[in-house]
Amino acid sequence: MKRIAILGSTGSIGRQTLGVVRAFPGEFSVVGLSAWSNTDLLLEQAWELRPALVWCKTPLPPEALPPGCRMAEGPTEIATDPSVEMVVQGLVGNVGLTPTLEALRAGKQVALANKEPVVMAGDLLAREVKRSGGQLLPVDSEPSAIWQCLRGEDPVRGVRRLIITASGGAFRGMPLEAMASVTPEDALKHPTWSMGSKVTIDSATMMNKVFEVIEARWLFDMPWERLDVVIHPQSIIHSMVEFDDSSVKAQLGPPDMRLPIQHALFYPRRLANSELPRLDPVAVGALTFEAMDPERYPCFQLGREAARAGGAAPTVLSAADEAAVELFLDRRIGFLDIPKLISRALDSDDSGSNPTIEQLFAAEARARETVRREAKRS
Amino acid sequence: MKRIAILGSTGSIGRQTLGVVRAFPGEFSVVGLSAWSNTDLLLEQAWELRPALVWCKTPLPPEALPPGCRMAEGPTEIATDPSVEMVVQGLVGNVGLTPTLEALRAGKQVALANKEPVVMAGDLLAREVKRSGGQLLPVDSEPSAIWQCLRGEDPVRGVRRLIITASGGAFRGMPLEAMASVTPEDALKHPTWSMGSKVTIDSATMMNKVFEVIEARWLFDMPWERLDVVIHPQSIIHSMVEFDDSSVKAQLGPPDMRLPIQHALFYPRRLANSELPRLDPVAVGALTFEAMDPERYPCFQLGREAARAGGAAPTVLSAADEAAVELFLDRRIGFLDIPKLISRALDSDDSGSNPTIEQLFAAEARARETVRREAKRS
Repeated sequence: MKRIAILGSTGSIGRQTLGVVRAFPGEFSVVGLSAWSNTDLLLEQAWELRPALVWCKTPLPPEALPPGCRMAEGPTEIATDPSVEMVVQGLVGNVGLTPTLEALRAGKQVALANKEPVVMAGDLLAREVKRSGGQLLPVDSEPSAIWQCLRGEDPVRGVRRLIITASGGAFRGMPLEAMASVTPEDALKHPTWSMGSKVTIDSATMMNKVFEVIEARWLFDMPWERLDVVIHPQSIIHSMVEFDDSSVKAQLGPPDMRLPIQHALFYPRRLANSELPRLDPVAVGALTFEAMDPERYPCFQLGREAARAGGAAPTVLSAADEAAVELFLDRRIGFLDIPKLISRALDSDDSGSNPTIEQLFAAEARARETVRREAKRS
Repeated sequence: MKRIAILGSTGSIGRQTLGVVRAFPGEFSVVGLSAWSNTDLLLEQAWELRPALVWCKTPLPPEALPPGCRMAEGPTEIATDPSVEMVVQGLVGNVGLTPTLEALRAGKQVALANKEPVVMAGDLLAREVKRSGGQLLPVDSEPSAIWQCLRGEDPVRGVRRLIITASGGAFRGMPLEAMASVTPEDALKHPTWSMGSKVTIDSATMMNKVFEVIEARWLFDMPWERLDVVIHPQSIIHSMVEFDDSSVKAQLGPPDMRLPIQHALFYPRRLANSELPRLDPVAVGALTFEAMDPERYPCFQLGREAARAGGAAPTVLSAADEAAVELFLDRRIGFLDIPKLISRALDSDDSGSNPTIEQLFAAEARARETVRREAKRS
């Protein structure tokens, strides 16, 4: 039995991970669960799965927990517990950085659905992987697709470029000006994927796609100029790899997060799971591709520049985006204010070129503050 | 330098192989070339590449050959010469069986573009590979796509099915009745691929596709029920593999035989070749899929039954097809006579279930005879 901990167990990734775990009785032992505010579901999961450790924001009384289970001090204690072999990291936003970094330092496998830690500190995490023998296994569908296409290939020599596909989000085809008046409800209607609200808004702004470019940069050690994005509205081809000999490999599947989750959980094994949907190419209709017009996606442009600038800029990008998306979901700013506020946070950062992890956290806090202050002013 | 022999060097595969060889000076030494009747081109190739052995149907005088080069007794002598490491087998039809079998027996790598030997005696070739340490490397685009998708995967456990794509040939969408009056010129107009005439007619009848199913059966040791065909008119996705965990991998590329040829020549390396076209997903337009209707392709049905029947039936199928396609190209029979004549040859075969190679050759000769006799009668 593989001993796993699930961070964010009551969220979209956490619940789907448990769906896969339940489909394979005898394969996994869940030794830790962490949630944020959904205490009821966390307790239900704890009584079902009997982990040794749980955590949520509000302390739970010992008598509420199943026998042998106690409250941890936080997600990081769960992620680094000696009994844990693999951490499924399904947290939302920047809060995932510390548990990811510490789990890697402790030599764990981290199945990572949460992009922001890699955006904030991809360089640091990549170095930690090399040093500690820990592993970062992508769970997000696009990097999982690239990982699958690279199985059995030489990723250093022989790869010409990675082609990350993008659905185009909720507002594909909408002119930039028309986006000024869209509501959170509009933005949360993703055309192909069912996901949490942060990542769905990030899909609409295309910030999500630049996060995936950054993720690919660090997970696959690929220079920026070999990372391309193409719009693929059907979300069936999850990404592609073009090799030096002009051959292209693609990974396809129904848009269902359980597929990449299961791939990471069992890698390198591929086991039958009758609960997973199958791809019927004939039923899919046409698979189409469009060039991405960066003009229509200011967040994508900001993100690309911040990523190439390096230093604390990607951290500021991620923190400012998180704060701005929160304000948008609370109806306190408009959709097009998201890139404007992120841009201000990036402009006001002065962290320098080789920040320590402490400096990154400081830059993160300042970026949130800048976004909130500027939002009030406008 | 890899020492290669090219069988069928003046044909479509042979010429394209030499295109790849010329793009990589210093990587290959061509030690043998065999052709059939295009003596002029063979001599030109011989003077350029300076092989030790050549062969063609009409003996050439020693003074016509470059220094150090002599006429071999046949393609098999070239394929089994001790100096040869890899045989690129680009012969047309059943004549490729003996050199392929003997090259494998001699432990060579055989980069195989010629499907008929595997159709005739796939079981025998697969056993020879296991016994001798020789290798069969697919060059044809569909099995090459499957091979590429299986790199780094466990082909025994974990594969749910292979999905072989078919362009649908020259007459996709044409009702079966209308096919009665098509001419060889019509049938030779392949919508996506530029290939030799035998394989182009086989594409129009879909015999080519059943040959690929049989090839996949033996090259990848895959049971019949895991081999599916889907129509994909654009010929961009060259085939797919569906894994047990519902993930699908596809290999894509412009329809250009030099890509799979280069993949086989350099496997497992992938080297840049600026002469090869690149795939631009945006320029490709839509990728579509249609279910194959076996009713519209009697050759596909005959082929599938013969393949499953085993014994000498696949040999009879291949021989009868070769003879019938020849008669069609000579305008001596109609397009829909091809499946009729093949069906008669299959019905009249009585070779039994465990034929020796000698019995296979006898069945082959009888099948040709049956086709020619029945064609005259009708």
